[in-house]
Amino acid sequence: MTGRNFFSLLESKWDEKKFLCVGLDPVLGAMPEEVRRESVRETYMRFNRAIIDATKDIVCAYKPNIAFYEAHGDEGMEALRETISYIQGLALDIPVILDAKRADIGNTSALYAEAVFDYLGADAVTVQPYLGSDAIAPFLERKEKGVIVLCRTSNPGSGEIQDVLVEGVPLYQHVARLVTEKWNRNDNCMVVVGATYPEELRMVREIVGTMPILVPGIGTQGGDIEQTVNAGKNARSRGLIISVSRGVIFASEGADFAAAARLKAQDLHDTISKLI
Amino acid sequence: MTGRNFFSLLESKWDEKKFLCVGLDPVLGAMPEEVRRESVRETYMRFNRAIIDATKDIVCAYKPNIAFYEAHGDEGMEALRETISYIQGLALDIPVILDAKRADIGNTSALYAEAVFDYLGADAVTVQPYLGSDAIAPFLERKEKGVIVLCRTSNPGSGEIQDVLVEGVPLYQHVARLVTEKWNRNDNCMVVVGATYPEELRMVREIVGTMPILVPGIGTQGGDIEQTVNAGKNARSRGLIISVSRGVIFASEGADFAAAARLKAQDLHDTISKLI
Repeated sequence: MTGRNFFSLLESKWDEKKFLCVGLDPVLGAMPEEVRRESVRETYMRFNRAIIDATKDIVCAYKPNIAFYEAHGDEGMEALRETISYIQGLALDIPVILDAKRADIGNTSALYAEAVFDYLGADAVTVQPYLGSDAIAPFLERKEKGVIVLCRTSNPGSGEIQDVLVEGVPLYQHVARLVTEKWNRNDNCMVVVGATYPEELRMVREIVGTMPILVPGIGTQGGDIEQTVNAGKNARSRGLIISVSRGVIFASEGADFAAAARLKAQDLHDTISKLI
Repeated sequence: MTGRNFFSLLESKWDEKKFLCVGLDPVLGAMPEEVRRESVRETYMRFNRAIIDATKDIVCAYKPNIAFYEAHGDEGMEALRETISYIQGLALDIPVILDAKRADIGNTSALYAEAVFDYLGADAVTVQPYLGSDAIAPFLERKEKGVIVLCRTSNPGSGEIQDVLVEGVPLYQHVARLVTEKWNRNDNCMVVVGATYPEELRMVREIVGTMPILVPGIGTQGGDIEQTVNAGKNARSRGLIISVSRGVIFASEGADFAAAARLKAQDLHDTISKLI
């Protein structure tokens, strides 16, 4: 994996007008009969490989969320590692974002960075801002990796903390400003803003300039794609990673799950392409 | 593990005047020659068992940080699971706090709760407040488990976000108030305040009433034990879990590591007992 640079990979995908990111979050109870095997590892790999093979030519990234794998212990983690390795072995140069929402004090954060980037091999990772920048420094130091800071998350209760006013400005905007002006010294930061909050997305875009924004929350969570693109694209008509998980991978739970995922992904890709 | 209740276990330890929590954060490069084996799992288990056996009669809890295990993949996670199981099998009823600093949106958070409480078997867990309470709801619903919300962390940069003023009050106090007044419906919340900030600890104690506070940062990080006890104990002279990791487990890196850990833990225990 030497030489992989998250931002170069991403720019190449944007050159090809690809902005859709598929979230690889398998759920055991929702696995189609066709992929089920004795072991969780094998079941998840059969499912993920089928989804990846069906969508790999139209995505800008894949985003597995580590929680879906951790919940199954060693077998789950093995499936995660294999999934990342499978994507990176495709010769399509698709970057992998690990959604892990990590952060901890210095010596511990270094271990998380090791786990995420070296053991699992991710190209980018999501991190929590609450502990401050020294808690994500070991991530920030990896210039070739993307560090995606939670800013305004897509969940209903995100405003409880993220909307409190700091000198008249909501905290999420304060975080966006900190990331842009102070934490981005290696030019490898990004922010997360949920598609469920298009007005907030517009405000963040104004603050972060051309910085890439990861936008989850389209589909099942209710985010609107047109509002997202209009509010979130940057001055170069780029800057967006629009992430959909359940809406694509569980488009059908039957034997046609991979074909259904393709149709859904294609539809999203076409819609985004037209809008951007 | 049916019937285990984190808060009952903790109260019993406080009855016995035990307030010290030992952080089980093994580091491969710092393992004494005596415990080293081919496999990381075996090395970590030999180390952890020796530390636990040497300190089990004077602690109120153990706190492994999951990052130290995750960094070694499957083997590390197996060691973590075995460590928790070893502590819970001691018949000393010592609660185990998993330092994991988790939080994610609804369906994902449920999986983290499953991983932490069911797969790993922890009695309590640390969580991030930034996403809001719905992001930790699956943890909060487990009434018998402790949910320990980051409030004022011990690291040097914690003030970057935690000290921003919200209507004239630092954010960490706003979080302490939210946890106390809104998130604690099942009476199973706690907060984290670093020993490196005794004045902030005093402010949080005023806000949270008798709620238990987990205080890391004594020792290597520079926190003062007398200031911590005075600022942090509650009206019943309880309410504190004072956590020390490297200061105890790496008191010596030689063959006498377990005996040195005991001496250091005993010293801390005696000091806290006198002060409280």
